[in-house]
Amino acid sequence: MTKRARLQLTGAMRLVGTNEFGKTTTFDVQPENGGDGSSASPMEVFLQSAAACSGMDILSIIRKKRKTITDLQIAIEGERAETHPQVYTSITVKYILTSPDASEGDMTRACELSQDQYCSAFAMIKQSGCAVSWTCSVIRP
Amino acid sequence: MTKRARLQLTGAMRLVGTNEFGKTTTFDVQPENGGDGSSASPMEVFLQSAAACSGMDILSIIRKKRKTITDLQIAIEGERAETHPQVYTSITVKYILTSPDASEGDMTRACELSQDQYCSAFAMIKQSGCAVSWTCSVIRP
Repeated sequence: MTKRARLQLTGAMRLVGTNEFGKTTTFDVQPENGGDGSSASPMEVFLQSAAACSGMDILSIIRKKRKTITDLQIAIEGERAETHPQVYTSITVKYILTSPDASEGDMTRACELSQDQYCSAFAMIKQSGCAVSWTCSVIRP
Repeated sequence: MTKRARLQLTGAMRLVGTNEFGKTTTFDVQPENGGDGSSASPMEVFLQSAAACSGMDILSIIRKKRKTITDLQIAIEGERAETHPQVYTSITVKYILTSPDASEGDMTRACELSQDQYCSAFAMIKQSGCAVSWTCSVIRP
């Protein structure tokens, strides 16, 4: 399976990525780093893409159990090394599902399946040597 | 250095990430994967974030050499494993700089510095075991 994208400069540091279907994703940095602060930075988006990758696994798994999803919120935090290349050394993720009928057990199992088996981004992040920890909870609507 | 973000469900599979400055990044998947195809997918954006991370390094390095940048385009392609967790196994990047005065040597050196020393995303991707290759060229405006 091949994924392709093109990025183009549209500001001092602003880069717009376009996927194969013409959908765009914008990257920028704060003024202290030479940008206009118009969008999230590449390493912020890198972190978010892992959360989104995992979040979508969880949505699919919970739906396969025929449970209803009212909301999913994910908080993600990454700690970067002080020295170049400033890789993420640890990442923590909090998954909060709002559902009338999914149990804590359903949600824990969905998160485990994503983190341990399905999520491509977290698999690569863990293989890089970054520590990943997560917690999850279920709220009734 | 800590990076934080929050993601929220706003569609069947659509997740909107918000960074610390309130800037948003949207993720979705195609209908065959249960989404609305409204945005690039998490693993497409993961790939793009690495290209953007590296592209911004290159912009900074070329500008520190007091060369003028008219445009930067980056084409990125990633090959994913067939089996779960479907990590990227190889990535190729083409950097195309448009500049009236930067030499091929300036650009090659900038790409080397990004790929080998500065780019956090590519450092993590390479540490995960994914092969990364790149080429660069300079076009006169």
